[in-house]
Amino acid sequence: MELSEFKKIAIQYKVIFFDAFGVLKNSKGVLPGIKDMISFLKESDIDFFVLTNDASRSPQKLVKSYHDAGITEITEEKIISSGMLVREYIHYKVHEGTIAYLGTEDSAYYLQKKNVKLLPVRDVADYDSISALVFLDEEGFSWELDLNKTLNILRKKTMPVILANTDKTYPVAKNDVSLAIGSIANMIERAARKKFIRFGKPDTQIFNYAFNYKISDASITKNDILMVGDSLATDILGGNHFGVDTCLVLTGNTSPETYNLMISSLGIVPDYVCNSVVE
Amino acid sequence: MELSEFKKIAIQYKVIFFDAFGVLKNSKGVLPGIKDMISFLKESDIDFFVLTNDASRSPQKLVKSYHDAGITEITEEKIISSGMLVREYIHYKVHEGTIAYLGTEDSAYYLQKKNVKLLPVRDVADYDSISALVFLDEEGFSWELDLNKTLNILRKKTMPVILANTDKTYPVAKNDVSLAIGSIANMIERAARKKFIRFGKPDTQIFNYAFNYKISDASITKNDILMVGDSLATDILGGNHFGVDTCLVLTGNTSPETYNLMISSLGIVPDYVCNSVVE
Amino acid sequence: MELSEFKKIAIQYKVIFFDAFGVLKNSKGVLPGIKDMISFLKESDIDFFVLTNDASRSPQKLVKSYHDAGITEITEEKIISSGMLVREYIHYKVHEGTIAYLGTEDSAYYLQKKNVKLLPVRDVADYDSISALVFLDEEGFSWELDLNKTLNILRKKTMPVILANTDKTYPVAKNDVSLAIGSIANMIERAARKKFIRFGKPDTQIFNYAFNYKISDASITKNDILMVGDSLATDILGGNHFGVDTCLVLTGNTSPETYNLMISSLGIVPDYVCNSVVE
Amino acid sequence: MELSEFKKIAIQYKVIFFDAFGVLKNSKGVLPGIKDMISFLKESDIDFFVLTNDASRSPQKLVKSYHDAGITEITEEKIISSGMLVREYIHYKVHEGTIAYLGTEDSAYYLQKKNVKLLPVRDVADYDSISALVFLDEEGFSWELDLNKTLNILRKKTMPVILANTDKTYPVAKNDVSLAIGSIANMIERAARKKFIRFGKPDTQIFNYAFNYKISDASITKNDILMVGDSLATDILGGNHFGVDTCLVLTGNTSPETYNLMISSLGIVPDYVCNSVVE
Repeated sequence: MELSEFKKIAIQYKVIFFDAFGVLKNSKGVLPGIKDMISFLKESDIDFFVLTNDASRSPQKLVKSYHDAGITEITEEKIISSGMLVREYIHYKVHEGTIAYLGTEDSAYYLQKKNVKLLPVRDVADYDSISALVFLDEEGFSWELDLNKTLNILRKKTMPVILANTDKTYPVAKNDVSLAIGSIANMIERAARKKFIRFGKPDTQIFNYAFNYKISDASITKNDILMVGDSLATDILGGNHFGVDTCLVLTGNTSPETYNLMISSLGIVPDYVCNSVVE
Repeated sequence: MELSEFKKIAIQYKVIFFDAFGVLKNSKGVLPGIKDMISFLKESDIDFFVLTNDASRSPQKLVKSYHDAGITEITEEKIISSGMLVREYIHYKVHEGTIAYLGTEDSAYYLQKKNVKLLPVRDVADYDSISALVFLDEEGFSWELDLNKTLNILRKKTMPVILANTDKTYPVAKNDVSLAIGSIANMIERAARKKFIRFGKPDTQIFNYAFNYKISDASITKNDILMVGDSLATDILGGNHFGVDTCLVLTGNTSPETYNLMISSLGIVPDYVCNSVVE
Repeated sequence: MELSEFKKIAIQYKVIFFDAFGVLKNSKGVLPGIKDMISFLKESDIDFFVLTNDASRSPQKLVKSYHDAGITEITEEKIISSGMLVREYIHYKVHEGTIAYLGTEDSAYYLQKKNVKLLPVRDVADYDSISALVFLDEEGFSWELDLNKTLNILRKKTMPVILANTDKTYPVAKNDVSLAIGSIANMIERAARKKFIRFGKPDTQIFNYAFNYKISDASITKNDILMVGDSLATDILGGNHFGVDTCLVLTGNTSPETYNLMISSLGIVPDYVCNSVVE
Repeated sequence: MELSEFKKIAIQYKVIFFDAFGVLKNSKGVLPGIKDMISFLKESDIDFFVLTNDASRSPQKLVKSYHDAGITEITEEKIISSGMLVREYIHYKVHEGTIAYLGTEDSAYYLQKKNVKLLPVRDVADYDSISALVFLDEEGFSWELDLNKTLNILRKKTMPVILANTDKTYPVAKNDVSLAIGSIANMIERAARKKFIRFGKPDTQIFNYAFNYKISDASITKNDILMVGDSLATDILGGNHFGVDTCLVLTGNTSPETYNLMISSLGIVPDYVCNSVVE
């Protein structure tokens, strides 16, 4: 596929959905030029939202890196994280008992609910009191101790199990990745032979959440929305499935050298490919 | 889990989502008592919709079996099939060229669009003209000839591939099943090493479609909706994921003898279990 | 990896194991130069065997194509097919009743045993009499009718199920492939949720069979053997697993343009790579 | 299936292959009555071997628990562990460089070879010097640190990766299990998208090793051997695949309450079922 200039593409839409990591920022921080690109959207009367498979930080913390880079237009209201979908799930489906979780204390932010107690897996003593178990983040617990404990909880007590981020790895440096909670949850799911509930792209629930709860202008249809991401298997597949146009950028998981090969070998086809959102 | 009486459960909700096969009908036709149950809902001012993983027949044909059984309340407007989601996908994402499909001519109903040509895989001659390929139904084509042709099309042309029904088998008699298009598509997906787009339960898109396009009363929230189905891995998992309450019935895929074992071994937990929707 | 000259590699070994398809022949017949290469081995006092994932034809038929090309050194004794492993399995493990099979009548050759009856799935009437079911070949039966019947037999009667060829596709023309019995068996295995017994590379049983039953010189160790094949995931992975040196050739499934990418992306590493066995 | 008395079955064979864990011992030590059963075999002139998916301890340590229980007939020569297969693999396939491993120092016993250096993954500094990577045991390393490091090694250097034990979990107390190295390796294999080489039951290599290297009496055929195990998916499936008769015992992974259900739901059929090897 030929490369397009991002601004020429963006201007055809009323709303842009951005993935965060690999599109607006990377392991070193917000990418150069993002502030100007956001200003361009504002001048052009194009609204935008950030859809991120991140349940490790509260919206307040998620916006902080943008504000630190001087981008005040990215507010809490502009961010939809997979953690928020978990919060919605808890709201509708968990009414009592204790929610056990794997992740940092910070990530447990999304589980807070009246009459429901929260406990890291490590502190669970009474298995019968657990009404749900949530995989939030790969940090904040001992993999050896708490994963084995999680497996035994699941073998002894039947309950819904929620995965708040389906990513399998995440970049930690130029050439290094780390195992993400998605890989860990898949391992436990196989060992326990249970079916987990997964939130986050490519599942379309996060797109529906943004579309229904965040876009106030009722005249906007899926035709007016562009999803922009760096990952074919999450951002582009999910956006296509949801029914909006999709734009692959080459500043993250997919490289300029291999994007054509990746598109044809996976059979996941974006509507556009751009070098970045600032070119 | 203890068994509940369906009417006592239903009365707590404003809208019921029913699966069709195994809940309202089976291979012999509409189940006894469904007409009265639907009347009870009407009297109780409970709205309902039928959410079915069926892309083999048009809505007109889908309602016919109910009308033949004297149930005129189940109209085309009440039915949401996975075929309709494919139709929505085509509407937003396919604008030209030819859509190749596997399925009966009847199932191709859902693919119709202005400026887009439809061709069964068997009749495809020019691979470059194909803009999408859709698995609709396991009937209407030669498995030997057309599956091999499909595989070779996918190896030569990169395009979106859509699966309109993820069911792996379907019941054809008291003790017999047949391979459904979901199993066939999975086989081709593995052989071609591509990623397909899947519509139908447990994917939440069909629930969102019903929620957003069919429920006119804006005051209704997910708290007011009950999903009723006979399959843990599609109806109940999908309903839980979407965030509505769920009710398993034992008139189809899940039997009275094994439902407790199935719930604990899969870890998919309905909010209620009823023998049937008429008890 | 750098390319090597095949003869210079071969001369270091006492026994060569060849894959057939993509190495010695392709869809058009025996490759040019094979006759001379086999003569070279004979002159160099290097023994050889052909290890093939093929249960569709008897050894007599397998040698015919070589004899027609004037290569009389490839006799029945030189060929080990996955069908022979199935024959060994039947010998040791099936003692009575009826073996049901999917495949041509020719492929049923490998199932013959005293006191055991053979029936194509299509002709099975009494499910209780079936003592084993074998997937031999993708031809010789109706996919629609006999695969559905197979699935229902497996749901009703518990018995060992044997897959005689794990290949997922096979080449039928320069750019076309067909679904092989391996893909079909995987589909049925998932739908029936059973565990099948698989024969053929990369499983090491076929290498052990050749090593133990075909090599008469007791002084020969695994160090003296080279496996030559065109497929990383069957020939090379299986040879490495068995513990012999391995040589990838680029006349079949793996192309000169992509072999280095394939080796690094799969992580399956041959000891040598040659353009072909005749260069 | 009906239950048989073990001695009446055993007496029909010349050689018995025993699984260790769940058959001869459990988390509390050697099972009561094993000493007498082994004496019975000796009196009856029946030879035996122990085939175990255990690469965490050297043969010396493996026999110690038997000797401590007064069973001196189980010597190092009687034990075939999956670690020995890895040792054989290293012998034939790794000739230089450094082997990186995950596991205890004790488990690294199986990797020792002249001219080859051994390093736990934690101590690897020069990725280019690594000639193979082996998953030996789930203990002896930090899961967080060393699994992430392993993943990055595999992304940067193409090399054979060996899994020395395919077990997914292992029992640690009456009702508790722990994740075994098999689960961990599967997670890394998926994240790295590589193909690993797996040793241990159900793979038939361990049976071939016992058959070829341990049985000195050349008159013994597969007909004379019985495999006894507590796990359908490893012991019984592997024994059936190899071509020997198989006997399921109910003192470990498979319980008296569910064995019939497990046999029919997995479709893995032993020739006999016994309560234990001492009844």
